[in-house]
Amino acid sequence: MASDTLCPPVAAMADVQNRTDNRNIHIDKVGVKDIRYPITVRAKDREDRRTVASVNMYVDLPHHYKGTHMSRFIEVLSAHRDSISPQSIPAILSDMKERLNAASAHLELSFPYFIEKKAPVSGAVSLMEYNCTLCGQQNGGGADLTVSVTVPITTLCPCSKEISRFGAHNQRGLVTVVVRYNKFFWMEDLIRLVETSCSAEVFSLLKRADEKFVTEAAYENPMFVEDVVREVAVKLLADDTYAWFSIAAENFESIHNHSAYAYLEHTR
Amino acid sequence: MASDTLCPPVAAMADVQNRTDNRNIHIDKVGVKDIRYPITVRAKDREDRRTVASVNMYVDLPHHYKGTHMSRFIEVLSAHRDSISPQSIPAILSDMKERLNAASAHLELSFPYFIEKKAPVSGAVSLMEYNCTLCGQQNGGGADLTVSVTVPITTLCPCSKEISRFGAHNQRGLVTVVVRYNKFFWMEDLIRLVETSCSAEVFSLLKRADEKFVTEAAYENPMFVEDVVREVAVKLLADDTYAWFSIAAENFESIHNHSAYAYLEHTR
Amino acid sequence: MASDTLCPPVAAMADVQNRTDNRNIHIDKVGVKDIRYPITVRAKDREDRRTVASVNMYVDLPHHYKGTHMSRFIEVLSAHRDSISPQSIPAILSDMKERLNAASAHLELSFPYFIEKKAPVSGAVSLMEYNCTLCGQQNGGGADLTVSVTVPITTLCPCSKEISRFGAHNQRGLVTVVVRYNKFFWMEDLIRLVETSCSAEVFSLLKRADEKFVTEAAYENPMFVEDVVREVAVKLLADDTYAWFSIAAENFESIHNHSAYAYLEHTR
Amino acid sequence: MASDTLCPPVAAMADVQNRTDNRNIHIDKVGVKDIRYPITVRAKDREDRRTVASVNMYVDLPHHYKGTHMSRFIEVLSAHRDSISPQSIPAILSDMKERLNAASAHLELSFPYFIEKKAPVSGAVSLMEYNCTLCGQQNGGGADLTVSVTVPITTLCPCSKEISRFGAHNQRGLVTVVVRYNKFFWMEDLIRLVETSCSAEVFSLLKRADEKFVTEAAYENPMFVEDVVREVAVKLLADDTYAWFSIAAENFESIHNHSAYAYLEHTR
Repeated sequence: MASDTLCPPVAAMADVQNRTDNRNIHIDKVGVKDIRYPITVRAKDREDRRTVASVNMYVDLPHHYKGTHMSRFIEVLSAHRDSISPQSIPAILSDMKERLNAASAHLELSFPYFIEKKAPVSGAVSLMEYNCTLCGQQNGGGADLTVSVTVPITTLCPCSKEISRFGAHNQRGLVTVVVRYNKFFWMEDLIRLVETSCSAEVFSLLKRADEKFVTEAAYENPMFVEDVVREVAVKLLADDTYAWFSIAAENFESIHNHSAYAYLEHTR
Repeated sequence: MASDTLCPPVAAMADVQNRTDNRNIHIDKVGVKDIRYPITVRAKDREDRRTVASVNMYVDLPHHYKGTHMSRFIEVLSAHRDSISPQSIPAILSDMKERLNAASAHLELSFPYFIEKKAPVSGAVSLMEYNCTLCGQQNGGGADLTVSVTVPITTLCPCSKEISRFGAHNQRGLVTVVVRYNKFFWMEDLIRLVETSCSAEVFSLLKRADEKFVTEAAYENPMFVEDVVREVAVKLLADDTYAWFSIAAENFESIHNHSAYAYLEHTR
Repeated sequence: MASDTLCPPVAAMADVQNRTDNRNIHIDKVGVKDIRYPITVRAKDREDRRTVASVNMYVDLPHHYKGTHMSRFIEVLSAHRDSISPQSIPAILSDMKERLNAASAHLELSFPYFIEKKAPVSGAVSLMEYNCTLCGQQNGGGADLTVSVTVPITTLCPCSKEISRFGAHNQRGLVTVVVRYNKFFWMEDLIRLVETSCSAEVFSLLKRADEKFVTEAAYENPMFVEDVVREVAVKLLADDTYAWFSIAAENFESIHNHSAYAYLEHTR
Repeated sequence: MASDTLCPPVAAMADVQNRTDNRNIHIDKVGVKDIRYPITVRAKDREDRRTVASVNMYVDLPHHYKGTHMSRFIEVLSAHRDSISPQSIPAILSDMKERLNAASAHLELSFPYFIEKKAPVSGAVSLMEYNCTLCGQQNGGGADLTVSVTVPITTLCPCSKEISRFGAHNQRGLVTVVVRYNKFFWMEDLIRLVETSCSAEVFSLLKRADEKFVTEAAYENPMFVEDVVREVAVKLLADDTYAWFSIAAENFESIHNHSAYAYLEHTR
């Protein structure tokens, strides 16, 4: 790297990307993918969370341009990284459109999000990880925004419980809910909605009295993946915050080497 | 596992899944996810390829049923695993609907597919891996089928070449093409279409004369990700086999720690 | 790729790798990593399995050589891919040493391996996937060979069972056993040894009578990860086939968002 | 989860883990694996970095104990998460041994670490991600500590450059250095040592003048993976901070669908 290259002035360089393309093909999305960046996310408890996001940023490219200017995406990301929330996405999309001189912009931010959780009996405190994704797309008019949370849960099989003389197979599962929304809400509340719609909650730290509690709770609340998506759907339908939603539940079956899966989506 | 459990006759067991659910919520997809299974794929050279697929199989679940019967998916998969091709998907979907007593069926089969390739100068022969996905969905009427191929390529940056006194950054990229089609085609031909639309092809085995060839070929054919998706689009548009397509190109940039990305889709 | 490059004769090209390096630093391993290749593995039932391997191949590089010749690894792999077994590894290592003119060779082949399995009550047949790794290293003398199998299992928590009024949390786990061996053995037998050392076996396909069986079997055989590694160890110690072994058990805990883990190794 | 379970007092519960095991098998490592936790890492610029770690924590288990107490690992992790550095590892290991009543303790903390970096010509500032791992093991005596950094780099192939009329294939690579050390050092300095031992550095943000610079720098500094590990070794050997080291370099070859790899280790 001991290069002694003398760079000519930037102004003298060709701008290859700005050249004309004559294949007459519009590109829907052009940009940077899978960049990891530290961000600060606004939390319900007013203590901002610092975390690390995987980020995709795209704009459209009209048919007469040869290429986009990739470095500008990183400049926009750097400028906004200190205050990320569903509410800040439209401003980032607008900046992308302006800086890239584009008609549409698309943004995806996925990150682990930690929430303090108390064990159900002992009250022992630890942090639980949830994966969240903020996604926005802006064309001419307003932005289309979605928020997604992925929540670990326990499910206990109703069939296994009923047909067996004792016990019932149970396992960790993951529920991913994606919502479009009419008004403000906290990701924390959406996560709680899911955690109260399964056989038992998952924790990072359980003492013995807690383990007894969650074991018995799961046994008393047997649920298929089908039950989980329906239970979450019933609660989302009862809250007019959510204009559209999809719910996916995946069980890492303890008796199989594959997952059980259920999915539904609904437009209010 | 030395269990001496005496199982009651199967007929006596409750069929929990068949029970009525009264939450009035239809589920779009229920089934098995991420099961891995050995399959045999029909190849253009008439020598069938044995490979290993990751499989997702879903049906819908009407609102009045509590659950689906997961084991039947595996039975359908086992019955069909010996001859997989885009042409065999409709029969698998029909079997899924019949066995699961469902109105719709959804199937995804993803697998590595190996094709013998000759190095461009030495003619040295080796096998190249391409990831392929066959996907089908069947509701009341005919099946909606897509075929997807993911093809490794080399891209060389036109901007870097033009502004630099010598050299140009280049890198491995991946192009994923998904198509809906009006008539029969071979995945091998779709893969070749992509491999001839980039700065240079990728090989498993290159002797020195070949390395010289691909290095110079790439330098003479600089292409952005934007150029790659357009070049592939031009060729797909010229062939009326394809009723719809999407093209995604991703560059694992050699000068950055993230990818450059371009995407477009088109309905004929 | 429409390159009209005229390649000079190969003989005229510089062999940069063969040049002298004067930094006086010997390199332990040089080669190709993460290449995927179709292979045929010799199976106990005499029906060879075709599968797809992830392969690493390395040789040492004496301090006075600048580089190795990467293409030769692929040539050796291509020559041997049709008959892979623990017994064939020494011949591949010898070929690597000879073709690369090296004092030592190192090879790792990891692949999914499918075995037909009958459900415990219904006898329904399906295929189970196990990940296997063959590893060999050869210096001056004989080869150091290891075989590794990764086996999915069910574990049911003894603590949860004892302290709870009903039920017990259980989950899928993975046991990885690596062995050095004194004499021939089948991977199938090592896999069975692990499958009979857990709370219950895992299957791809279970009918209801089978689900009752494995649920009750797990409840009657509660085991911690600690119990699993000890149970496997007791059996391996009783068989003088194995000169050295390591055992790792990982539980994807149904009540936690992380794994429980136990590991031991033993030289006879 | 609307469980009305009345938990008996904790004191009344059986402590299954504390029971005697009579299989006479000592377990080397027992604990929690793949837990993700937010941590704060001490940085050279005195501004602590908040990031998210993947954590493994194990102790040994003497042959006469049946199991370990998994929840205590999380309690230790929670207590220490606010100030992580190579210097803090021994205290965490001691806490693990004490809380778990164990003779040995083992800890692995892996996390993305971001450092501000200036583009070489424009001076444009952005953040680069490096993966770091702190690892410690403590038996009777002192702790065995290692620090590992994984650094993205650019390599340009010397062979391709020499045999081709123009251009040279180049690609992103990853260099992982693991060190045992005699005295204090900053991870930032070890990362810089690697970044100055390759064909060109990798950046998150490059303007056109920078792209010209790194393109030309790479072309002027062709290096095989073999050269990279030797160059890093020469520098580590010149600094008596490092008592032992291993160096692995992996190139995501732009002309192949697999990696080129080199590895060496050295004890001073």
